[in-house]
Amino acid sequence: MIKVEIITIGDELLIGQVIDTNSAWMAGELNKIGFDVQYKTTVGDNEQDILDAFEKAFSRASVVLVTGGIGPTKDDITKHTLCKFFNTRLIFDEKTLETVMEVISGYKKALNELTRNQAYVPENCTVIQNKMGTAPITWFEKNGKILVSMPGVPYEMKWAMNQEIIPRLQAFFPISDSIQHQSFWVKNYPESLLAIYLEMFENELPEHIKLAYLPTSGLIRLRLTGKGADKENLCQQMAEQRKKLLALLKDDIVSEDDNVLENILDKLLKDKGLTLSVAESCTGGKLASLFTAIPGCSQYFLGGVVSYSNEAKQNILGVNASDIEKQGAVSQAVVEQMALGARKIFNSNCSIATSGVAGPDGGTPEKPVGTVWIAVSFKDRLLSRKFLFSKNRESNILRACNTGMMLLLEMVHSK
Amino acid sequence: MIKVEIITIGDELLIGQVIDTNSAWMAGELNKIGFDVQYKTTVGDNEQDILDAFEKAFSRASVVLVTGGIGPTKDDITKHTLCKFFNTRLIFDEKTLETVMEVISGYKKALNELTRNQAYVPENCTVIQNKMGTAPITWFEKNGKILVSMPGVPYEMKWAMNQEIIPRLQAFFPISDSIQHQSFWVKNYPESLLAIYLEMFENELPEHIKLAYLPTSGLIRLRLTGKGADKENLCQQMAEQRKKLLALLKDDIVSEDDNVLENILDKLLKDKGLTLSVAESCTGGKLASLFTAIPGCSQYFLGGVVSYSNEAKQNILGVNASDIEKQGAVSQAVVEQMALGARKIFNSNCSIATSGVAGPDGGTPEKPVGTVWIAVSFKDRLLSRKFLFSKNRESNILRACNTGMMLLLEMVHSK
Repeated sequence: MIKVEIITIGDELLIGQVIDTNSAWMAGELNKIGFDVQYKTTVGDNEQDILDAFEKAFSRASVVLVTGGIGPTKDDITKHTLCKFFNTRLIFDEKTLETVMEVISGYKKALNELTRNQAYVPENCTVIQNKMGTAPITWFEKNGKILVSMPGVPYEMKWAMNQEIIPRLQAFFPISDSIQHQSFWVKNYPESLLAIYLEMFENELPEHIKLAYLPTSGLIRLRLTGKGADKENLCQQMAEQRKKLLALLKDDIVSEDDNVLENILDKLLKDKGLTLSVAESCTGGKLASLFTAIPGCSQYFLGGVVSYSNEAKQNILGVNASDIEKQGAVSQAVVEQMALGARKIFNSNCSIATSGVAGPDGGTPEKPVGTVWIAVSFKDRLLSRKFLFSKNRESNILRACNTGMMLLLEMVHSK
Repeated sequence: MIKVEIITIGDELLIGQVIDTNSAWMAGELNKIGFDVQYKTTVGDNEQDILDAFEKAFSRASVVLVTGGIGPTKDDITKHTLCKFFNTRLIFDEKTLETVMEVISGYKKALNELTRNQAYVPENCTVIQNKMGTAPITWFEKNGKILVSMPGVPYEMKWAMNQEIIPRLQAFFPISDSIQHQSFWVKNYPESLLAIYLEMFENELPEHIKLAYLPTSGLIRLRLTGKGADKENLCQQMAEQRKKLLALLKDDIVSEDDNVLENILDKLLKDKGLTLSVAESCTGGKLASLFTAIPGCSQYFLGGVVSYSNEAKQNILGVNASDIEKQGAVSQAVVEQMALGARKIFNSNCSIATSGVAGPDGGTPEKPVGTVWIAVSFKDRLLSRKFLFSKNRESNILRACNTGMMLLLEMVHSK
């Protein structure tokens, strides 16, 4: 198993102004090719701290991936620190300047002294041209180990990893262990009850296969992870364990897809040539945004209404005013009319509707914070259910989104 | 300055299945009370790796905050590892069992063997009762240093930090340095040009005040950070530097609020008693979801339409079909009609509308990927502008949201 460490650099990560989404994405991609992330470290733009992190990581891992701190501004010192760590100096690189010029011409920004300085690169490294930004990617080899410095801007980092770094890592470490994941989306269980139910199964797992619980908002995602040098053998063992789990959990498994629910639905709706619309009250646009984050979603996603006010529910979605008055906006009658209203105005085959008390305020004894009505509709079917989620707004929004997607997934599957 | 390290524990963080949002939030809160996060480390559910991380962090920092790995399931081993590290053992704690019973009775889940085991706690620590979940919070003191273990579930962690840990840390380290931040939202500059323009300002800054560039999607966020023992003196010096920056950047400063743009608008619209609606094509619900994530937004946010299909633009928002046909959905005429349409159907004072080519596909020579039209409207005013953002879908969506919010912010401010 090739051991990898990720180092993210930047004061903004240590004072809480920026959330590091890079390292999770990187870890996921590395796992797919059988590389194992063992530590992630975040340090500020401070030379000594960066050097310490380099030293520690390089002593433990075979691959050290570094993001951030290579922008054109003065607070970015990663490049100089790399020179110090690898005992080298910066030299001017014409090829890098050409790439920088190409990148900024695409954005019609003028070349200036600072962007020109981006073409200075450490002497004893392989420079990988960054087609997405002005900061060059640098690849160092020492004692059979690799350190790569890349930009912290997420889409630049993703491009660099996919196009350049991962293929090069695979070429550099041709034999590596296999890692296999198998996910299960499970409904109807609180985490601790599921764990008791699966205790014996877990105890009987072979040493190199692990079971993990990933409580996602509204559902539990189980994951079997197997590691081993013999890929075929591992495949077979994973298949055996999967069979056992399927027999234990039966219909409570909503999906075995390793993707998040929006991606599972994305594929399903595309495959079946169906169309979707949403009507959102408590989820407030989050549900639509999950689908529209996926490239190509316009093939099936026709649109949505965020009907936050009662007037919007009536005027746009055609919800009956007297039902709102009598039963309240958070009610079965209203959420069902929202789902049907969305179907009608967007002319879609499927719809999801949400109406609930997201919190932290707005709860009543009858409808406490966390009460959410969800309706899904597909062809001639309409289903609505009431849930009591948590006291936390963020969690309630996510759970309502996931639960709505799960209900639609089951409805479309069952047809 | 009290040095803090954050350790997040969990395999799910190392295989990319979960993004760590906790540590950024914790860092922000710690900064406010003058504590300085120097390192963040993420390790998997592996005893030796956790012990190594404890050792390293405890040797460098005065405070080590640990999240995760204390759930009821077998993969969670933090509690046992803490016992090993502090050379102690688990004992049964009646008070903790009481809390666990209270917590699960609130959620109507049955007490079972696994949740009962949560009441076993390390012997030589202070147990802090967790009112939000079943995993107790444990506080260790050794050689004048502190280690606290808390849940990784975001809302449990936030409750623990705000209610218990931060007050106790302040009591334990009564004298600590002051940290002050001052943010500036700057428009009209690419990062490198702004850096050249501010180079002299930056060079003249006193040693203990730093300038950082936080390129947010669509705008640049500058941040001055000052640290010092003498709070009053620091205040004065920060005010001086702020004055200098205001003189240099003048009208290009959109806001000095340290919040993200949706929170700035949230406050402004509430203060002025205005109402908002949105009409989203390329941002696909993201803009609505930014507002609806904020508790109490229903005071001004009336709703939105995600008009992904042309039919939705026409039928719901009243966009002229011939304008879509002649000029395309990504055009000035269409985005302006979307903004006015949203105003009309939601009966709001303000609106934001977006229509663009988010990518990665769908670009043409005239309208390449990244082309986004944005319109904002407020009272009798309507403004629309065309932007060329990036080639990346995620970035285009965020930049369109931020730019739309910035344009509305300026329009409402200028009234």
